[in-house]
Amino acid sequence: MMTMSDPARLVIRGADGGMDGATGHYEKRLSELAGLYVDAAAHAAAVGRQGDPVVYAVDEFRPSAKAGDMIFGVTRMLPGKIGDEFYLTRGHIHAKADRPEIYHGQAGRGLMLMESPEGEARVIEIGPNAVCYVPPFWIHRSINVGSDDLVMAFSYPADAGQDYGIIARSNGMRKRVVDDGKSGWALVDNLGYRPRSAAEIQALMAQQG
Amino acid sequence: MMTMSDPARLVIRGADGGMDGATGHYEKRLSELAGLYVDAAAHAAAVGRQGDPVVYAVDEFRPSAKAGDMIFGVTRMLPGKIGDEFYLTRGHIHAKADRPEIYHGQAGRGLMLMESPEGEARVIEIGPNAVCYVPPFWIHRSINVGSDDLVMAFSYPADAGQDYGIIARSNGMRKRVVDDGKSGWALVDNLGYRPRSAAEIQALMAQQG
Repeated sequence: MMTMSDPARLVIRGADGGMDGATGHYEKRLSELAGLYVDAAAHAAAVGRQGDPVVYAVDEFRPSAKAGDMIFGVTRMLPGKIGDEFYLTRGHIHAKADRPEIYHGQAGRGLMLMESPEGEARVIEIGPNAVCYVPPFWIHRSINVGSDDLVMAFSYPADAGQDYGIIARSNGMRKRVVDDGKSGWALVDNLGYRPRSAAEIQALMAQQG
Repeated sequence: MMTMSDPARLVIRGADGGMDGATGHYEKRLSELAGLYVDAAAHAAAVGRQGDPVVYAVDEFRPSAKAGDMIFGVTRMLPGKIGDEFYLTRGHIHAKADRPEIYHGQAGRGLMLMESPEGEARVIEIGPNAVCYVPPFWIHRSINVGSDDLVMAFSYPADAGQDYGIIARSNGMRKRVVDDGKSGWALVDNLGYRPRSAAEIQALMAQQG
């Protein structure tokens, strides 16, 4: 008889955005986000001034890595800015690019910035009760545009994996999200963006099943 | 170029447990749950007395049925009892039995009653911020043990499907959940339960990938 996973109960903690029952935890410090911001000097200064704080932390429940299984977790992102750009995650596409992800806002005010292989940008606003479906093949990055912690639950296929290099290879995502100076946000072009080649796009889209 | 799904924003409505952005909706009326309760006469009387109310309703977002994609939705279950048994869902195992499901409590007080192919029973309590991971190969049924609507978000693999017949074939689940008379619940044996045969168990467990 094959081994079976056990049912599990997880509890999302309101106080700190963590999760009881998690099987894993990771966090990112501000210094690890070097290269993501237009204003590299402001980033370096903020790292020094603030003592390299944790800017996001993830508690995840990962029962297995089997195809067909699922991972569930909670991510907590701190509020803040580097120049006029908000704190954000590195972003990724799934290593199996045809795998989706679902983000479900628990607290705070955020955005999911998405980009297709061809470079089409989309933004979806996330907050309590708002859910973002990131379809297969879309690069995605979370951004805290509020003044409080942004807490999101997420679920995705257990065999999806992450490719964090895709954004670096195109020198960032096509669009940047900046403070609009009126307590909101705006999309601006990333002037350093390098579109993916037709061959790169084809290789991504060939990932099926 | 193959077709890609678009990103989507869904909003869980607090007022009625529905979801903006859903692609589908279904509901079950009390009469459709005939055969699930020990007290068939009480069930029939309740259907007549109450005018066959909707006992649960589901709003779902189903971008595709492709392997690797995911479905997200919200289910709202009304509170109530038939004899000493609470309102519950029909329950199912996934047609692809190795697919899991994740339920995330939004409001109310409920249980996930689960059963392995061999007939092991497990219960997990669900409420706001509590999440139940239903592993691959576990039959599962939701039960509203509170006095208010039970609202749960759920996500599962898009190719999972449902086998609703598995519970009927064993004449119910091994355990029943009953009112304990002290505002709580208790598990009791289902005296009519017929265990699955070794061949049936083997056929279920052979479903991989």
